[in-house]
Amino acid sequence: MAASPPNKWFWEFFTPDMLQGIALEGILYSGNSPYQKVEVIDTNLYGRCLVLDGKLQSAEADEFIYHEALIHPVLLAHPNPRRVLIAGGGEGATLREVLAHRTVEQAVMVDLDEEVVRVCKEHLPHHHQGAFDDPRVDLRIADARDPIMHGSETFDAIILDLPDPIEEGPAYLLYTQKFYQSVMERLAPDGVAVVQAGSALPMLLSEAFTPIFRTLSSVFPLVRSYRAEVASFGGLWGYVLASRGPDPAALTAEEIDKRIAERVQSPLRFYDGITHEGLFRLPKYLREALASETRLITEDAPLFVY
Amino acid sequence: MAASPPNKWFWEFFTPDMLQGIALEGILYSGNSPYQKVEVIDTNLYGRCLVLDGKLQSAEADEFIYHEALIHPVLLAHPNPRRVLIAGGGEGATLREVLAHRTVEQAVMVDLDEEVVRVCKEHLPHHHQGAFDDPRVDLRIADARDPIMHGSETFDAIILDLPDPIEEGPAYLLYTQKFYQSVMERLAPDGVAVVQAGSALPMLLSEAFTPIFRTLSSVFPLVRSYRAEVASFGGLWGYVLASRGPDPAALTAEEIDKRIAERVQSPLRFYDGITHEGLFRLPKYLREALASETRLITEDAPLFVY
Amino acid sequence: MAASPPNKWFWEFFTPDMLQGIALEGILYSGNSPYQKVEVIDTNLYGRCLVLDGKLQSAEADEFIYHEALIHPVLLAHPNPRRVLIAGGGEGATLREVLAHRTVEQAVMVDLDEEVVRVCKEHLPHHHQGAFDDPRVDLRIADARDPIMHGSETFDAIILDLPDPIEEGPAYLLYTQKFYQSVMERLAPDGVAVVQAGSALPMLLSEAFTPIFRTLSSVFPLVRSYRAEVASFGGLWGYVLASRGPDPAALTAEEIDKRIAERVQSPLRFYDGITHEGLFRLPKYLREALASETRLITEDAPLFVY
Amino acid sequence: MAASPPNKWFWEFFTPDMLQGIALEGILYSGNSPYQKVEVIDTNLYGRCLVLDGKLQSAEADEFIYHEALIHPVLLAHPNPRRVLIAGGGEGATLREVLAHRTVEQAVMVDLDEEVVRVCKEHLPHHHQGAFDDPRVDLRIADARDPIMHGSETFDAIILDLPDPIEEGPAYLLYTQKFYQSVMERLAPDGVAVVQAGSALPMLLSEAFTPIFRTLSSVFPLVRSYRAEVASFGGLWGYVLASRGPDPAALTAEEIDKRIAERVQSPLRFYDGITHEGLFRLPKYLREALASETRLITEDAPLFVY
Repeated sequence: MAASPPNKWFWEFFTPDMLQGIALEGILYSGNSPYQKVEVIDTNLYGRCLVLDGKLQSAEADEFIYHEALIHPVLLAHPNPRRVLIAGGGEGATLREVLAHRTVEQAVMVDLDEEVVRVCKEHLPHHHQGAFDDPRVDLRIADARDPIMHGSETFDAIILDLPDPIEEGPAYLLYTQKFYQSVMERLAPDGVAVVQAGSALPMLLSEAFTPIFRTLSSVFPLVRSYRAEVASFGGLWGYVLASRGPDPAALTAEEIDKRIAERVQSPLRFYDGITHEGLFRLPKYLREALASETRLITEDAPLFVY
Repeated sequence: MAASPPNKWFWEFFTPDMLQGIALEGILYSGNSPYQKVEVIDTNLYGRCLVLDGKLQSAEADEFIYHEALIHPVLLAHPNPRRVLIAGGGEGATLREVLAHRTVEQAVMVDLDEEVVRVCKEHLPHHHQGAFDDPRVDLRIADARDPIMHGSETFDAIILDLPDPIEEGPAYLLYTQKFYQSVMERLAPDGVAVVQAGSALPMLLSEAFTPIFRTLSSVFPLVRSYRAEVASFGGLWGYVLASRGPDPAALTAEEIDKRIAERVQSPLRFYDGITHEGLFRLPKYLREALASETRLITEDAPLFVY
Repeated sequence: MAASPPNKWFWEFFTPDMLQGIALEGILYSGNSPYQKVEVIDTNLYGRCLVLDGKLQSAEADEFIYHEALIHPVLLAHPNPRRVLIAGGGEGATLREVLAHRTVEQAVMVDLDEEVVRVCKEHLPHHHQGAFDDPRVDLRIADARDPIMHGSETFDAIILDLPDPIEEGPAYLLYTQKFYQSVMERLAPDGVAVVQAGSALPMLLSEAFTPIFRTLSSVFPLVRSYRAEVASFGGLWGYVLASRGPDPAALTAEEIDKRIAERVQSPLRFYDGITHEGLFRLPKYLREALASETRLITEDAPLFVY
Repeated sequence: MAASPPNKWFWEFFTPDMLQGIALEGILYSGNSPYQKVEVIDTNLYGRCLVLDGKLQSAEADEFIYHEALIHPVLLAHPNPRRVLIAGGGEGATLREVLAHRTVEQAVMVDLDEEVVRVCKEHLPHHHQGAFDDPRVDLRIADARDPIMHGSETFDAIILDLPDPIEEGPAYLLYTQKFYQSVMERLAPDGVAVVQAGSALPMLLSEAFTPIFRTLSSVFPLVRSYRAEVASFGGLWGYVLASRGPDPAALTAEEIDKRIAERVQSPLRFYDGITHEGLFRLPKYLREALASETRLITEDAPLFVY
């Protein structure tokens, strides 16, 4: 028995030609919200995972890498982030990392899918760790375009932790030049934004990472790319940080460690000063791919990933 | 037809609980050498690949990352590497990168399996690019222990590009403290060595990466770890650089770029000064895992990976 | 989304070179009994299924074929089966079909694994349909060797609905010549027995089907083989009927239909007179494979299947 | 190594929820004809196989079952089949079985795809066994509608050994009431036809088998269904025999054996008198599914399978 391969599996196709299979231990929840198929699974390899429309969104074992890499560079780049907007992030782990910042006075979280938030609250306690109960949280079930394209509030930081833009889903409108222009308008002076930008694997990086970088570069005065390892997403994940002022890449390891000590009230496992310096020093082929990208994502020429 | 998943696949189990599947286009070669099963396959995703005992060893699409990361940090750390020993590396791509260094006067390559070398010469021209014909090459079909444990030659650099230590294979004796002591003895003063050290994925890094680091640290005065993205190996790959003198981590981007300009005669796609700085700035959890490892690999307590 | 393949799967290897994959909807139960891994899963294709040690034992969608084919030929071959022994059959569906016979006054069911019976009672109501509550049932948690090799009761029919003989499991002792001799001793005059005998697929039939047939033929005066389609087991399943007197193959469709009308009190979906005639008319290559088998299964030379 | 699962696989989805995986040894041919993707693969389990558009068409290990079941019932039902038309059957194995009949004076084979025929001639010698060289063969590269809907020749037997009707392919027009009417018109008095009719697995039989049976029943005076085990197609395969006169189901085992002895000049492995009787004695649920089918396949309401 020991020698036989497992008989229950979770498969995810990263491309039509490539899949990752993970032995599946349990299915805690499986249902359909008005927007998508929602599942919570247990695996030995990655622990408990959220799956939306068949795509693994977040795994207990390495979500700390994804979420620390998403939140701390952008918030520490800002001198004093008090009001933060999170678009997406239903698991509550993005919220958890935002709330770890002592400077944060209000965290507005906008997620389209109430069912996802409800399921995550119930089944993913490791992810949110009670973040939804923090009095600084303003949770709104709404389209992220409401506060960003039609609202008038401004924020010190905007976190776009959105599902990938797939053809069937509504998220693709949140990956356009027009939307990013609204993001900039909703930022206070010195405001900063970060976008989870899809796979940074060499054969996938031009699917989303480079056009998102290019499109943000057409809108913001300062844009930086980085990536972190997220095994459960297939290896490497890209991020783009867009700023109205501060430049995260200019911060030294020492300065980052100092800001962490002053401003972050929970222990970090992935991120620190040296990690920060590593994040922004991308290999040559990736820098060249980002620099040579010419595609702008617009509503007329939207971006879809597999 | 377009919507159906591919029907021919190459599967590799990275752990008993995790596999990567790649759509398979062709099988160019499949045979058994005296030591292992040898296969050459074609895939759309990764191009042409060498597979030994079911494990993908090297893929056309991203071998440049693996091999540039293996060779250039160690050779550029040395002030003037003239004699280089390669253990393993049957595809010839390690040899190719070594030969790209103008300083190199002799490259001794020792591979146990003549059949692997023959098959790679024939089927992997993209990998070796004619390297085997370079007059500086001294190719020997032998156990790497011959020159390292029983020989008397010395080298400026030793490259251990060996198959993973699996229980059935002979390579595990090349991952021990005793072997590494011999490696140090075969190095000239200022000599440097590098070891491909297995997966650096968070859930796999203690399988080989951290004990190899720990074991080399017990032998060499200076040891540095780094990692690079190799999607075809599952995401991230670890390397350990062991030195009798020079410290690669002390070199700035500028110094690396200067040495590349002076000493490397072929264009690089992955590696340059900024890449170098990124390679050695590891994230916090990985530095902690390396630092806290206590296992020494010995002949009595050898290392086996899945 | 519609075009993507499912992301949750149940895999079963029928041989090291062949697997069946079924999209998995839910995992109702997963645990380890003292004897084996016990799972109950939901699938769209086959409905609810019992899985022991990774092997699908019985599926809601086609268990009626497996169980009707197992029970009705043997019980209808007997003139008046009153006392029936079932070895194995934890799901309760074998019991259900036995109890459908008006002639049956007592059904002794012996299963080694109390946990399997408990899980099936709770999770497989479609299978047992309340059979365990029938007052004619005498359920014993015991090794089937207890009543058969060490007991003194006799039965009109003995049903060996046992797990496949695998190397790690205890069932292999229940597939030997010695055990079958005891089965014959426990049969009353005119008594009949039936054995589920493994795959009848052309490339698998000599793994268990033909040696079980040969071994029973060395013990019983009359032995008949037949097979039925059980898609969830990979296609075709073999059975061997061993008799101290009556010959099921001599019964015409008309006689079978008459006996069903008189003796079977629940509607049948798979089995009737024409089906019966078809069951026993095996194709030429299969008759030849059975006739030419020479292997006897003994305790010294036991049978193991993959 | 022995315990690891194979790393090269051929997968076929029989439904979106079910797949068969077979370990893959070699890819002998892979190309695209004007009509479809054509592949020849080697497997340990099934030997050499023809694959069209990802669907296994015919496997060395069990093609004898498929082809003997296709040809001998229909040809032996006819008193003296001299002129036979085969539509499809590119591998040449259908032709081989037709030519085994001494009565056959002319075998017209019509296949749309010259490339398939060429590849099979070269790579599938086990299948055709030189049949294409028999002087009785008239091979025509053409749409089967040419001789059947637009021609004026008549035949004693017509064999429709066509690919499954899939949405993307042209074959679906050859599965309609209109086409079957032309088939009847092209038959001589006492003429007989047979159609390969898709999977006979319980959960798949209403996909093609029952509507093909129903549609042929609306055209021909006498129609019989049967099925045979073809593991490489997933288990059980359905056939429908349509006749202008002779009734194959009325023939006894003795009569079949007599006709084989007189008329078939090559040894048979699957088919003989007893096999014949078994073929036509279908289980109850299958007879009921055939009898209760109401769907007629027309050009306006064509049949498509997955």
